[in-house]
Amino acid sequence: MNLREILRARQTLRGLIWPTPLLRSAWLSEHRSADVYLKLENWQLTGSFKVRGALYKLARLGPTVRERELLTVSAGNHGRAVAYGAELFNARATIIVPRTAAPTKIEAIARHHVSLLLVGEDYDEAEQQAREMAARSGALFISPYNDADIICGQGTIALEMLEALPQLDTLLVPTGGGGLLAGVALAARAVNPKIAIFGVQSENSPAMYESFRAGRLVVVHERETLADGLAGNIEPDAITFPIVRQYVNDILLVSEKAIREAIVLLLKHEHQVVEGAGAVGVAALLESPRDFGRKIGVILTGSNIDLDRLTELLGRVPTAQVAPTSP
Amino acid sequence: MNLREILRARQTLRGLIWPTPLLRSAWLSEHRSADVYLKLENWQLTGSFKVRGALYKLARLGPTVRERELLTVSAGNHGRAVAYGAELFNARATIIVPRTAAPTKIEAIARHHVSLLLVGEDYDEAEQQAREMAARSGALFISPYNDADIICGQGTIALEMLEALPQLDTLLVPTGGGGLLAGVALAARAVNPKIAIFGVQSENSPAMYESFRAGRLVVVHERETLADGLAGNIEPDAITFPIVRQYVNDILLVSEKAIREAIVLLLKHEHQVVEGAGAVGVAALLESPRDFGRKIGVILTGSNIDLDRLTELLGRVPTAQVAPTSP
Repeated sequence: MNLREILRARQTLRGLIWPTPLLRSAWLSEHRSADVYLKLENWQLTGSFKVRGALYKLARLGPTVRERELLTVSAGNHGRAVAYGAELFNARATIIVPRTAAPTKIEAIARHHVSLLLVGEDYDEAEQQAREMAARSGALFISPYNDADIICGQGTIALEMLEALPQLDTLLVPTGGGGLLAGVALAARAVNPKIAIFGVQSENSPAMYESFRAGRLVVVHERETLADGLAGNIEPDAITFPIVRQYVNDILLVSEKAIREAIVLLLKHEHQVVEGAGAVGVAALLESPRDFGRKIGVILTGSNIDLDRLTELLGRVPTAQVAPTSP
Repeated sequence: MNLREILRARQTLRGLIWPTPLLRSAWLSEHRSADVYLKLENWQLTGSFKVRGALYKLARLGPTVRERELLTVSAGNHGRAVAYGAELFNARATIIVPRTAAPTKIEAIARHHVSLLLVGEDYDEAEQQAREMAARSGALFISPYNDADIICGQGTIALEMLEALPQLDTLLVPTGGGGLLAGVALAARAVNPKIAIFGVQSENSPAMYESFRAGRLVVVHERETLADGLAGNIEPDAITFPIVRQYVNDILLVSEKAIREAIVLLLKHEHQVVEGAGAVGVAALLESPRDFGRKIGVILTGSNIDLDRLTELLGRVPTAQVAPTSP
């Protein structure tokens, strides 16, 4: 994986995905006394950036895409992206999501012409069963992050951001298995070796954080999190991890309270619908005392949040009283 | 005003505005047994389509834009667009909005380097005072709709929609003073003389509806509406009206209940933040028994809704129980 492959992914994806804007947030810029820019992947086709990696992966399969049954596992967004891609490429696909996945994600996948299986109580259980099913059935397993093509597809986001604003000092990147983080770090550091890259995840699902500190992949205890799209442990052989260790400055943890406030305040100030996983970068800006430089880019990765959840959050964060956690 | 001028507006606006996607709504397509496409001008810079007309108007002023004080009146979105444009073109501008304008719109205007005046209890009062102030001060008055350049700027939306999907049978267009409706109707009918164009407004502010029926501009009694951006009577000499009479099939009224449901269901099913004025086209799809053909384009004109208002609507339309008004 290198810049050249990410440029190839970009060429392949042209016309297949939406180029999304990089929006300066007056609210966050004032709050941080810096220029804060939001990369609006919550506006991406299928409601998340995952469509980049998924479509590039399917495109790279060539004729194989129609010859073999595809099988994937996902907290929801990658599954929706593969389902969208399967229709586009006329492929057969089985999408496995945990029974606890967000209903809005499940419903969106169910609208596509794919097989949908609800399996396991969390992402880790679903992934294990998906791996076993793929081994038994001979289906081609498509990992949501442990795959070079997926990583290169996600990396195209960094190219768009740095073309729009080459002066960015720092990128804040929501992180689960590290597919997005690895792709963005590879691309951004190739363009600007001095740019700072931070992964962000919830303190309730700190797999990459703990692994980064340990210097090796470790298994953590997962608790429930608003950032459902980032939950789950990381496969022991994950090719994302060496890239993250090499190119990423640090992994940051944010509280569930900060994620909640980020979701509500993005709706209030920017009229953006952002799911928990997509809001962790903004949560870090609300909560972290760290100096992120003068020009900060934050990726809002997806919009697929349940309306019931959003309604509940609006009740819990009375907007008239919201005082963002001081950084 | 003609297609050639609207094409010129499009050329001028290139790079200044965001081209917005035309999104197929699986939810509305199922609901109507037709293909329903949403033009996402709620994603436009400044949060509404108004930036198209405003920037084209300022660009057409040439050096005048910096020589004269600009003055405009608005329910909010046009004012925000002119404020944005004044900064871009280095112009001096005074923006007048009614005291009752949505706080999120007022706050957004206040972030710009313009003078902001809150005047009058509703749009009609604000407009009257704005006209008088312009006459006294010699400032250049920029009408939000009664202006050929504004109309041509707004008309560029139709060109984008028909390029994305030339087969559109029908366009549903939110309507207040008719600037958007006239521009869209001019452009769309020039491209496809058979396309059906409907203006939509709230039954609580039916100025264009009643005027269309009377065959002349009439003054109506305004009641409060969720579609605050469409409220207000129409100036007696409005150049939009003859165009609307010539090219528009009909003006539709929607209930406040349907607008409320449209806002909530767009959030639920499409994760779109749409203000009341922007949601009236979808409200018509929820409520109207009319046959709109097989491919329907709906313009979502803006996103600038207060979070308090949205939270209140979510409380009033329990999402688990929502059954859309049958068409």
